[in-house]
Amino acid sequence: MDPNASGLGMRLAEAGQSHLLQFWKKLGPQEQADLNHDLQGMDFKEINGFFQKAMETSSSSKQEKMDTRMEPVPREVLGSVTRDRESLKDWELTGLHCISQSKVAVLLLAGGQGTRLGVSYPKGMYDVRLPSHKTLFQIQAERILKLQQLAEQKHKIKCCIPWYIMTSGRTMESTKEYFSKNNYFGLEKNNIIFFQQGMLPAMDYSGKIILESTGKLSMAPDGNGGLYRALGNQNIMDDMERRGVGFVHVYCVDNILVKVADPSFIGFCVKKGADCGAKVVEKNNPTEAVGVVCKVDGRYQVVEYSEITLATAEKRSADGRLMFNAGNVANHFFSFSFLKDVVQKYEPQLQHHVAQKKIPYVNGEGQLIKPDKPNGIKMEKFVFDIFQFAKTFVVYEVLREDEFSPLKNADSQDAKDTPTTARHALMSLHHRWVLNAGGHFIDENGRHVPAIPRDGAAGSVTDDGNRNLKDGTDLPIKCEISPLVSYGGEGLEDLVKGREFHPNVMIDEKGVHELVKNGV
Amino acid sequence: MDPNASGLGMRLAEAGQSHLLQFWKKLGPQEQADLNHDLQGMDFKEINGFFQKAMETSSSSKQEKMDTRMEPVPREVLGSVTRDRESLKDWELTGLHCISQSKVAVLLLAGGQGTRLGVSYPKGMYDVRLPSHKTLFQIQAERILKLQQLAEQKHKIKCCIPWYIMTSGRTMESTKEYFSKNNYFGLEKNNIIFFQQGMLPAMDYSGKIILESTGKLSMAPDGNGGLYRALGNQNIMDDMERRGVGFVHVYCVDNILVKVADPSFIGFCVKKGADCGAKVVEKNNPTEAVGVVCKVDGRYQVVEYSEITLATAEKRSADGRLMFNAGNVANHFFSFSFLKDVVQKYEPQLQHHVAQKKIPYVNGEGQLIKPDKPNGIKMEKFVFDIFQFAKTFVVYEVLREDEFSPLKNADSQDAKDTPTTARHALMSLHHRWVLNAGGHFIDENGRHVPAIPRDGAAGSVTDDGNRNLKDGTDLPIKCEISPLVSYGGEGLEDLVKGREFHPNVMIDEKGVHELVKNGV
Repeated sequence: MDPNASGLGMRLAEAGQSHLLQFWKKLGPQEQADLNHDLQGMDFKEINGFFQKAMETSSSSKQEKMDTRMEPVPREVLGSVTRDRESLKDWELTGLHCISQSKVAVLLLAGGQGTRLGVSYPKGMYDVRLPSHKTLFQIQAERILKLQQLAEQKHKIKCCIPWYIMTSGRTMESTKEYFSKNNYFGLEKNNIIFFQQGMLPAMDYSGKIILESTGKLSMAPDGNGGLYRALGNQNIMDDMERRGVGFVHVYCVDNILVKVADPSFIGFCVKKGADCGAKVVEKNNPTEAVGVVCKVDGRYQVVEYSEITLATAEKRSADGRLMFNAGNVANHFFSFSFLKDVVQKYEPQLQHHVAQKKIPYVNGEGQLIKPDKPNGIKMEKFVFDIFQFAKTFVVYEVLREDEFSPLKNADSQDAKDTPTTARHALMSLHHRWVLNAGGHFIDENGRHVPAIPRDGAAGSVTDDGNRNLKDGTDLPIKCEISPLVSYGGEGLEDLVKGREFHPNVMIDEKGVHELVKNGV
Repeated sequence: MDPNASGLGMRLAEAGQSHLLQFWKKLGPQEQADLNHDLQGMDFKEINGFFQKAMETSSSSKQEKMDTRMEPVPREVLGSVTRDRESLKDWELTGLHCISQSKVAVLLLAGGQGTRLGVSYPKGMYDVRLPSHKTLFQIQAERILKLQQLAEQKHKIKCCIPWYIMTSGRTMESTKEYFSKNNYFGLEKNNIIFFQQGMLPAMDYSGKIILESTGKLSMAPDGNGGLYRALGNQNIMDDMERRGVGFVHVYCVDNILVKVADPSFIGFCVKKGADCGAKVVEKNNPTEAVGVVCKVDGRYQVVEYSEITLATAEKRSADGRLMFNAGNVANHFFSFSFLKDVVQKYEPQLQHHVAQKKIPYVNGEGQLIKPDKPNGIKMEKFVFDIFQFAKTFVVYEVLREDEFSPLKNADSQDAKDTPTTARHALMSLHHRWVLNAGGHFIDENGRHVPAIPRDGAAGSVTDDGNRNLKDGTDLPIKCEISPLVSYGGEGLEDLVKGREFHPNVMIDEKGVHELVKNGV
């Protein structure tokens, strides 16, 4: 296993990466074998090319702001659940029809681990402590199952929503095992297709690949835009074609409210003849750290909050709304033919983005150093990088409180997007479903709890008599409805209309369960 | 000191409140004297009358929802900083002119203690840990001082903004002492006028006054609407008249961003010929626990979130905005003549609101009981109860991120409106002021920090390459600007334009100070 004998030493030397073997002689046989295996599988010329292009783009364009080149999304390509309510039903019917024809697939981006959540397993396996203790994966699986049933009932035809799940080297095995153990949550095993995004090495600013130990390269997934390459090299497009998939809904695993294969969104995009669409929520605060969908030099793209000046972020239209308010929530629609073109033609044209990072590395003495400043880069593509290639691009605006609550951080004093906020968002939505279906919640004295309660007791006021904006996140109503009972609030009247519930209730296939107080 | 000798026993018996003396014989002489003193000062007939009326209203009207009687604020009475930008300058000039004529007073509602903040002193004395460690009182004082200077400079005339501060029995002494110790923060002592709101006893559901100990009644301030009665019985209206006050800005102590005597708001109200106006922020989420300004049966009022159904809270206008979106932030404008009418004519017509509370009480054996369910009521009026009497009512919509961040709760995992959120809100505003005045912040490598940074390092991405909504409240830029330097972002160009700052900066009368990192 002499690296020189196999020609590896030469390849590394040609690529200026010989330092990767600097500790070779100190490695044990297994370490040598592992390192050799990792290195043999890599195309250093390609990686060096990625690095050069990414760094060029980064240094030339990143410094100048996008501001002058940006235009907002024109009204005619925008569909809005609040402003186009007369069309909603129609869009939903169209989407449901597509689903019934088995033309709609969903594609889940689940390459991330729960590192920032403080767990080492895939994020989708996280339990945010709902009454049911369902994980994100289970919630999404059940929504797919329910949607299939709704389409089948409506159109009297058996259908299927294939579910493509992109994992990474770090999450593939545990994800598959989790689904298998849980019997695929009632879905057909054959209709869940796992595949894996690529990895790229971290590099220092001079283009040298970083060693995270004497015998191991520092590797990271190639960004959620690694999707397109993975779709090609793992024959996923062929699988879609075989199944007759016409439309794909792509989304990220971390959003507990995600409307998987949302028929309204799909129907809107289909009706508009779009090849590509983005679901957005309204950005209300100029300094909210969200990317916005807009046009740059006439082409659609997501502009990151860090790429614009404050003056642009604060610009407003005549109606008082922020001019750039289409907040990206990583929910996208692609027609199959567009996706195929992307995979075959466009993806290779995309350059990697550079993310400067603090990357642990071994120094010349083989000691592990944890830098306190960025010392190198990771290279990533983003799933939305391909918007620019769309011929008919549309934007679909939905309500944040109904559809977007990502899980990112562990619970802590000043963290956002935590298990607590995700759990509250879901239960608040389900609480509203019950009210809108004619159910009521009552307090310990049998009185109706207000729709927007401050706490368990009715009519309470703050100590200073100052009744203004909310002063706590207390959630007096705990209410969870299984996706197997309702996908989007439909079908609840028979179960709840005119009924009174104590403020701790779970509704699933077996009926309505009132839970013991504080039992959650 | 026999209570029967003084006729007190008889008065109590007539009012059905004889139980207040049930422990009389067990009290020591001082306790007897104190209780006697408290009881002698009370008008039991009046209190019983308050109770009866409040309970009647509460039981008859509270159960039926307001929904069908509500109308949104019509566009023609609305001024908006985002939708009427062409008028802003004009309104501000008008307001500043009124200020220069010494016609504008501010009136601070500061009767509350920092109980929920975990402190026993007045909220205004709270230090949210800004770099300067200024308290809410000091920030507000300095804004008044600065505004006087701006008006004086503009109109070459000496002027004064009298500051009326309503305290309660619990906060009066410590508030006065605090101002005196701090030399009134540079304001004229004579132009700060303290007065005190009234107190009312807590009562059980049958109308008996609650004893919190064997010799002491359970008392609470009579709500921020106690303002009007206090204005009358402490001759504040006379003081205003003597000073020639024409317009009054009323606000609550807890909003760190409050634009005290905001010239634009005042100018708008004056231009519109309003006798009464309310500053609001847009309510975006239907279940946000904020009262909304609207019309009920044709008259303006604040409808509490608990008084409407979800269906009404979710109603939207054709433009997609919530129909009832004028979120009350307890910032009001009154003309002097309207306020005078309120104090003299209207206030007595107002009934108290009932707040059900868990009120500690002594039982028949003299033992203190802390109930775990509401066991009685406090009676309160609200400052906005008098909107209904306005002849010309207007609404002024401002941006939440610029003007509203109340301090309500101690820092904790899922609390809102905490010292941390208040501090961040102020520093974020001042950060934006610097950027908009042409200043820049640079990181440790000398590069410009993006206007909306995620963290100190530029261009960082989340681990899963998923760049969407903000995932933390990290605040890389710490920036505080003294109100003595800028009231609302004006006058900063000379100090910051074209300059580069490290991300920890304080600007005060003495200049720009870069602070030691992590030194705050």
